[in-house]
Amino acid sequence: MVKVLLFVLLSLATAISAVSAQLDHPGQFSRLGACPDLGCVLPPDRTNFLAGAKFDVRVEVHGEDQVQPDTEYSLYIRKLSKADTKARKNNNNKLVDFTKFTKVQPDAPETWNFSYFKDASAYWKSQSGDKNASTTVNVASSAWRNVRLREPGTYEVLLKYQDMASGNQKTSQLIWNVNAASKKRKAKNVILFIGDGMTTAMITAARLISKPHVSGLYQKRMHMDQFPVLGHVMTHSIDSLITDSANSASAYNTGHKSSPGALGVYPDSSPSPFDDPKQELLAQLLRRRSKKNGGKGGVGIVTTAEVQDATPAAVFSHTRQRGEGATIVDQMIHGQDPVVADVILGGGGKYFHSQNGGKSLNGTDYYEVYSKERGYKTVFDRDELLAYKGKGPLLGIFHSGNLNVWLDRNVYKDNLNQTASDPRGSDLPALNQPNLDDMVIKGLEVLDMRYRKEGWFMMAEAASIDTMMHPLDYDRALADLLELDNTIGKTKDWLKRNNLDKDTLILTTADHGHSFDVYGSVDTQYFNSFSDSEEIEKKNSIGTYKNSGWPSYVDADGDGFPDEWNVRYTLAAGTVGFPTHREDFQVNVNGTRVPAVAQGNSHHHFKVYEANPEDAPHGINKAGTLGGNEAVGVHSLQDVPIFASGPGSELFAGVQDNTEIFHKIAEVLGLGDQK
Amino acid sequence: MVKVLLFVLLSLATAISAVSAQLDHPGQFSRLGACPDLGCVLPPDRTNFLAGAKFDVRVEVHGEDQVQPDTEYSLYIRKLSKADTKARKNNNNKLVDFTKFTKVQPDAPETWNFSYFKDASAYWKSQSGDKNASTTVNVASSAWRNVRLREPGTYEVLLKYQDMASGNQKTSQLIWNVNAASKKRKAKNVILFIGDGMTTAMITAARLISKPHVSGLYQKRMHMDQFPVLGHVMTHSIDSLITDSANSASAYNTGHKSSPGALGVYPDSSPSPFDDPKQELLAQLLRRRSKKNGGKGGVGIVTTAEVQDATPAAVFSHTRQRGEGATIVDQMIHGQDPVVADVILGGGGKYFHSQNGGKSLNGTDYYEVYSKERGYKTVFDRDELLAYKGKGPLLGIFHSGNLNVWLDRNVYKDNLNQTASDPRGSDLPALNQPNLDDMVIKGLEVLDMRYRKEGWFMMAEAASIDTMMHPLDYDRALADLLELDNTIGKTKDWLKRNNLDKDTLILTTADHGHSFDVYGSVDTQYFNSFSDSEEIEKKNSIGTYKNSGWPSYVDADGDGFPDEWNVRYTLAAGTVGFPTHREDFQVNVNGTRVPAVAQGNSHHHFKVYEANPEDAPHGINKAGTLGGNEAVGVHSLQDVPIFASGPGSELFAGVQDNTEIFHKIAEVLGLGDQK
Repeated sequence: MVKVLLFVLLSLATAISAVSAQLDHPGQFSRLGACPDLGCVLPPDRTNFLAGAKFDVRVEVHGEDQVQPDTEYSLYIRKLSKADTKARKNNNNKLVDFTKFTKVQPDAPETWNFSYFKDASAYWKSQSGDKNASTTVNVASSAWRNVRLREPGTYEVLLKYQDMASGNQKTSQLIWNVNAASKKRKAKNVILFIGDGMTTAMITAARLISKPHVSGLYQKRMHMDQFPVLGHVMTHSIDSLITDSANSASAYNTGHKSSPGALGVYPDSSPSPFDDPKQELLAQLLRRRSKKNGGKGGVGIVTTAEVQDATPAAVFSHTRQRGEGATIVDQMIHGQDPVVADVILGGGGKYFHSQNGGKSLNGTDYYEVYSKERGYKTVFDRDELLAYKGKGPLLGIFHSGNLNVWLDRNVYKDNLNQTASDPRGSDLPALNQPNLDDMVIKGLEVLDMRYRKEGWFMMAEAASIDTMMHPLDYDRALADLLELDNTIGKTKDWLKRNNLDKDTLILTTADHGHSFDVYGSVDTQYFNSFSDSEEIEKKNSIGTYKNSGWPSYVDADGDGFPDEWNVRYTLAAGTVGFPTHREDFQVNVNGTRVPAVAQGNSHHHFKVYEANPEDAPHGINKAGTLGGNEAVGVHSLQDVPIFASGPGSELFAGVQDNTEIFHKIAEVLGLGDQK
Repeated sequence: MVKVLLFVLLSLATAISAVSAQLDHPGQFSRLGACPDLGCVLPPDRTNFLAGAKFDVRVEVHGEDQVQPDTEYSLYIRKLSKADTKARKNNNNKLVDFTKFTKVQPDAPETWNFSYFKDASAYWKSQSGDKNASTTVNVASSAWRNVRLREPGTYEVLLKYQDMASGNQKTSQLIWNVNAASKKRKAKNVILFIGDGMTTAMITAARLISKPHVSGLYQKRMHMDQFPVLGHVMTHSIDSLITDSANSASAYNTGHKSSPGALGVYPDSSPSPFDDPKQELLAQLLRRRSKKNGGKGGVGIVTTAEVQDATPAAVFSHTRQRGEGATIVDQMIHGQDPVVADVILGGGGKYFHSQNGGKSLNGTDYYEVYSKERGYKTVFDRDELLAYKGKGPLLGIFHSGNLNVWLDRNVYKDNLNQTASDPRGSDLPALNQPNLDDMVIKGLEVLDMRYRKEGWFMMAEAASIDTMMHPLDYDRALADLLELDNTIGKTKDWLKRNNLDKDTLILTTADHGHSFDVYGSVDTQYFNSFSDSEEIEKKNSIGTYKNSGWPSYVDADGDGFPDEWNVRYTLAAGTVGFPTHREDFQVNVNGTRVPAVAQGNSHHHFKVYEANPEDAPHGINKAGTLGGNEAVGVHSLQDVPIFASGPGSELFAGVQDNTEIFHKIAEVLGLGDQK
């Protein structure tokens, strides 16, 4: 089965040669996502489906500027026989009307319009006030909801429509591939650790500052280093080389690529962020499909971010706009086939209540709603979390927004006092926040009590690796990476103590990268001995190759973190895409870095960011490599690592697309009953 | 066996707890490599040996400034019993004099002195003319040559000496671990492809510009992507977090870490670059140990660099200074246990002859010497290479220095005319250079003819990934990475055609990274529409996230390379450690980039580099992040990938140190007879 699955996924290009692919068009701006033409079908060409998983279909026919779209389009589908595929021929005779084939009636036809920019020139003209810089698109659309393709194989989909400008009849031709997965469960439980934004270079740097080495050989290694299986994951969006956390996490939870910002849907062009074509989620499939096996299967969500943030929300939410935090809270318990996770631990209190700037949906107290409607126990600080020994579902919200990062939670604790961050909306700061390991272990205890027999899926995110890489706060990012790694170690210990290690697949990966790397060391004592005008002399404190030597971080107490963060010999680190800022290579003890601020007196029609005079004031100057209006660093291209351990781990070896992770987890959990 | 090997390597820290490790000292400058104290033993603490492999031992006792070193030091060794290890006790009673234990007499005692800098402050004072900035070290030393430890297990080594300044008796305590490898050969042949400086981010970028994708899903993948096993390799030097190609390639060929610049030796502090303590090389072991199996075992070396360059020279050479090209040529056939590779293909003609600036050892014509003494057929261009059908050993040298890069060999061919690069020393340019695939396939043919029965080891290097990353010439680097990947594809085809695919382990890895990554795309048409003073507007041509879209490279002819390199939508790429330069994100058609040049009128006492006014003259300005005297980009920290395919490939999964690669190849080749 494993081989079959991999074969299907990897050899798609040759297997479905009956029609030729429409390659992604070059360029920065697009009318709509992966749509190659005026006639657009979502899911798009070359989509891979899990047999029997639910999905919506959206057709949009576009007309630009004064041209109205064809409203008389029609959609067809046929399953390609092996003979069709082998003969590489395209026999349209057997095409069937999509509604008839799927037995799903479409929603009522809709029309709307939207506008877009054709390229950077048009976009920046618009930013300078040119109202004619954008292009209007008129849309005719239909949607089919909750479609299922149960039979594995290759399907051809045709959209026929008229280009109303030319009067020509046109056809959009797609190939869809439906994968079978096994019905046999390889692992009872799956834990998916996501180090948001984590790359191989960050793991290397985190190892270097925390693990002892002799003659250049490590005497201890990271827990990730000890996973037997390693893979790489390609993270492109459906329509851009660089992804964001929402659509990459969505790929892990649905098997479908999407666009930045989208969760569990393909973004359409309609005004509403909630009517975009949905895909069934891994957690929904686990709930639905494992019912037949005698139980629902547990779902746990743990994050150091807001629980409405992209990566956790991708486990249970459907919306084009990850920013819709209030609705996302509602979707968890009131959405279509709601996931109602057994464990929800993280930040994001402000979307649960309406106190003191709280933004909950319609002002509702969702703590109360979760509790009354679904029996959740609610906890709001570390002590309450650790004290919980019940079997009921657990909602732990420990901060109004993202949890503070490990370095502020545990070393520079004064920084916690800076804001009113109480998850219930008081004016107080949240001073008693749990660490990631506290949340994960408690989550495991609850899942184990509720679903020891049936098994469970937990997604646990170290969110602030990404959140701290954006403002170039490398110390805070690496500390949160170490917190993740130490949590993995404690998780493995917990699984072993509870006799679950043989039954549990552990995956550790990221959703995208940042371009962080280390190119030497810095003698900060020497660096700091020069005045601000002596930039070249300051830079001479950077040692490369042989003179990079070793940094002076030491973990003498063996807790997995450096004992001191403010040391003489630090890492000469940086990223590739950054705003204009200053760099002094030293830990920012007073809280998260803010590398750039908006110019007060810019002559431009858009915001322009310049170095924050209060950040690293005695640092060297780094002129930005991003558009002038970008305030922080950005995501990067590189494939991210995936470490796998436990039953089914062998599936994750080698290089794979992020959508394959979904299919492989479905395989491991035996979600292949095609129903 | 596999499990045992991995266990030994990975659990060293716990297995040898009888003594505690002396952690590497922090700081940029060191007196001598990994030496933790005045009394120094090479190989150092925690070294892993292959049972029975030859190595030299060097003891140095130091005295600083006016203090003379103790000349009455003594060296002891004992094998730790399992009981010792288990009891975590350190029983000195059984220590034996090193000479007696090893039955190897040391060379005559030596003394010398050298000087070093204590830190960056001292170093830069010296650069400014301060003659008192360095520290003198007086040395007493002994060396034991061709030692072997045949019995696997853990050894304790003690150096006892007096600190002559304090009069105190001191002890340097080391742990050495001797690994058994299997005697049973898992693979008859091993090919080690090295993409010099290649990282995961570069592979991701090379895939993006060369492989077709639809809806963000690749329809073809890299050959590397299709390897079933993936690992990561930690690349630290013995004494610095950043390595160079010499000592990392040396780790692959010897199992020993070393210092930047060193090949097959631990650098000592003596004046000669040829008396440093050696380690037996993989190729030497293959020649020596497979003799008993009825033949010598073939050795092939292919590179696009000079054959004396770090990575190829590491296969056959022993010297502390990789720059000793003339002696390295001589070592191939006249060194101790010379490797006399069956196939040597690459550049570096200038070290073989003395014509026209040629630098061969003592003015000797080494083409003639290789031919006369060892029967090499010599070829000097692509036609001669392809025409060779003989069974004799083959020396192909195609350039006086490094071969030109793929982009100049195949697209911008006029650039080949710029220098007198004839490998035989004429005034002519080398216009008919082979590509990497030409050299590898011919090399395989020769090895197959000579050693089909006995098997062989080939190291094939795509050297200019690194060579082009240094001057930030990303197009040229990625083209050479694609040349490597296409060569791997052709190699797999060749192996299959010749029924060797089941017998051959293919490894593809790098020796270290560069901090290259991609953070978006650039609309170069928009970029080029602004004047040099409109930097912010130029930067607004950079699209990130959704607006990164797709670049406009296309490989319509299917040769594995983009058809056009000068396209509208390119990659927004960069590195982290770079000199001051300009960037326009566009291919440099007139040859390799030269990003920075020395300031003509610097007021500093050292060279200061500034942006080259002729490189990317209309680009944006990037202020350097390196010491002012660095002219090009530098190596980076990140673990590098290793892709493995074929028998024994499973050994290379997960995270490993670069020294482990040697032990694993020895395991696969069955070099474990302990003789």
